[in-house]
Amino acid sequence: MALRIGVPAETAAGERRVALVPDVVKRLTQQGMSVRVEKGAGTGAFITDAEFEAAGAQIVTREEAWASDLVVHVQPPSEAEIALLRSGSVYIGFLSPLDHPEIVEKLARQGVTALAMELVPRISRAQKMDALSAMAAVAGYKAVLIAANLLPKFFPLLTTAAGTVRPASVLVLGAGVAGLQAIATARRLGARVSAYDIRDAVKEEVQSLGATFLELPFEVPDAQDVSGYAKALAEEKQRQQAQLLVPHIGRSDVVISTAQVPGRRAPVLITEEAVAAMQPGTVIIDLAAPSGGNCVLTKPGETVVHNGVQIVGPLNLPAEMPVHASQMYARTLLAMIQEFATPEGFKPDFEDEIFKGACVTYNGEVVNERVRALLAA
Amino acid sequence: MALRIGVPAETAAGERRVALVPDVVKRLTQQGMSVRVEKGAGTGAFITDAEFEAAGAQIVTREEAWASDLVVHVQPPSEAEIALLRSGSVYIGFLSPLDHPEIVEKLARQGVTALAMELVPRISRAQKMDALSAMAAVAGYKAVLIAANLLPKFFPLLTTAAGTVRPASVLVLGAGVAGLQAIATARRLGARVSAYDIRDAVKEEVQSLGATFLELPFEVPDAQDVSGYAKALAEEKQRQQAQLLVPHIGRSDVVISTAQVPGRRAPVLITEEAVAAMQPGTVIIDLAAPSGGNCVLTKPGETVVHNGVQIVGPLNLPAEMPVHASQMYARTLLAMIQEFATPEGFKPDFEDEIFKGACVTYNGEVVNERVRALLAA
Repeated sequence: MALRIGVPAETAAGERRVALVPDVVKRLTQQGMSVRVEKGAGTGAFITDAEFEAAGAQIVTREEAWASDLVVHVQPPSEAEIALLRSGSVYIGFLSPLDHPEIVEKLARQGVTALAMELVPRISRAQKMDALSAMAAVAGYKAVLIAANLLPKFFPLLTTAAGTVRPASVLVLGAGVAGLQAIATARRLGARVSAYDIRDAVKEEVQSLGATFLELPFEVPDAQDVSGYAKALAEEKQRQQAQLLVPHIGRSDVVISTAQVPGRRAPVLITEEAVAAMQPGTVIIDLAAPSGGNCVLTKPGETVVHNGVQIVGPLNLPAEMPVHASQMYARTLLAMIQEFATPEGFKPDFEDEIFKGACVTYNGEVVNERVRALLAA
Repeated sequence: MALRIGVPAETAAGERRVALVPDVVKRLTQQGMSVRVEKGAGTGAFITDAEFEAAGAQIVTREEAWASDLVVHVQPPSEAEIALLRSGSVYIGFLSPLDHPEIVEKLARQGVTALAMELVPRISRAQKMDALSAMAAVAGYKAVLIAANLLPKFFPLLTTAAGTVRPASVLVLGAGVAGLQAIATARRLGARVSAYDIRDAVKEEVQSLGATFLELPFEVPDAQDVSGYAKALAEEKQRQQAQLLVPHIGRSDVVISTAQVPGRRAPVLITEEAVAAMQPGTVIIDLAAPSGGNCVLTKPGETVVHNGVQIVGPLNLPAEMPVHASQMYARTLLAMIQEFATPEGFKPDFEDEIFKGACVTYNGEVVNERVRALLAA
């Protein structure tokens, strides 16, 4: 019997994405796999059951979708959802394994082989499976749109009969995928953009997008580590960094902060003093809100106004652009499935760098070292 | 005694603009005029009383501001506000005179000389007083931002490791100032833009912004009249036009409609059939909502969802970008004041084309012919 891939609906509050979209379903079914989509799973992303059926999927119940050989999902499963997974089945999705090791442990106990999309290694061969980057691009784009909508000013320079309007100043903190997409979008809209990152290596990329790269006058070693993520700076250096950013933040109409370190609280880049230096009406979009925020005043999931500065702490921007976010996510899943599964079944391959990196549970055990260490702590 | 210019706070729901901003106040006080700003009038636009004082204004009560020699305002005055105006004083602001002739009549009875910013003629010398165009530019920009925020897709073409995302298709109906700014903003964001206008004369301008000019295969005479506004088409032709637009609307991710005819109900350009042709998740921003809407399903002041199509009917977008909208509006008022007032007083000049065009009441009489005709009807 052909490998049965299950697509259960998302149940997390506000989640509008769906793990697979019709054109990806079509590719999988054409390759001989069977795809079972929970009734209504595509609603939030404006995809009807009929469209999934036309692509070759079967519409099934929630229980049937979860009881598939391979289950693909966006949000980490709830306890009730884990209980619906069959022992011996495979689960692929976001798992926040370093923030929620307990979910990984429950998947292991359920006898499920789980792959965390966050842990796909950042190597060229795995680029097309890099779901985290795909979603970060959505978040960076969306952050700028939200900021532009909240700012009581134009982004672009405008020369009109009623005088000239100066372009908005946008500061992007952290030039990873989200930061670079934010820079590109703010530039498109005509803002003057500057960006800061502790990794000097991103300077050229920032400049090639038409933004100014901020160099702070202090001594920090280049913080690009092997996996491409920013290393956490020592505590004292972080304080200096935040202090040196104050005047730059104070001059900005919009600050978009994106600095996150997986498994740790986000570094503080925007102090209360920095917010006090900003003008009323200005906007901070803190994309690090899910891990505590880069701004000390951020309230995750809320918008707060502090001395007239609007501080937005979004938790899940990709869910607010569900059509393209689902499409991009589904393509990264397609690449994973094509790499590790055939119509005959799923083939775990611990010799493979990508599989080994992403796999967090196997044969009833938590197999990721960092997650094991967190669980042992 | 120097001419006293009053700036009362706005009291209309949601209005965050203020008629003058500090740098305009400074210009006026330096020229020897006295500016009296109501306490807190700048709050919505993030301007403090202290900033107005630093520019040379006095902070006064509501009654004092309204009892000035020349009162400048954004929204038309309420009955209670008209009662605060002194007989013999001058009022300059938006008055919607063709939609609300009764307000004009009350101003005449109060003995106020009133100038309606909407009626400043569209001649080159008056460009710097063209408040309507300045506000339309804000609305067109803002409409695109709202649409981009609501659309579940990216606007730009995006080539990522997770596949290519196609650019959004934006259709702009009506290529006046708001429409042209919407085209420019949607193009900046990377969308594929097409635009339609009954006036062939705007074709080149549309194309110069990188948009496609839609030419519908029917026979309508060029509808550009002498004042630059679109003439209303005959009823049957409007029906044909709406019919011919259906497939174009159906192919669009975003439709921004801006067609308004002063003093009349907005023409219907988007029928129920056209909305039915659009995909779920798509967005209509109907800038003609204040005059009934270009879309038959628009509810002015609300966002309705019809078969998954999000239809937004904003009533006052400039108020949502109050810093720059106030700045631009204030500059048009400055130009008016400099044209018709000196520190010694306001100088009505019916020989002047601009004054004659804008002035709606004088010496206790309604002096605008069209408003008189509406009141007599």
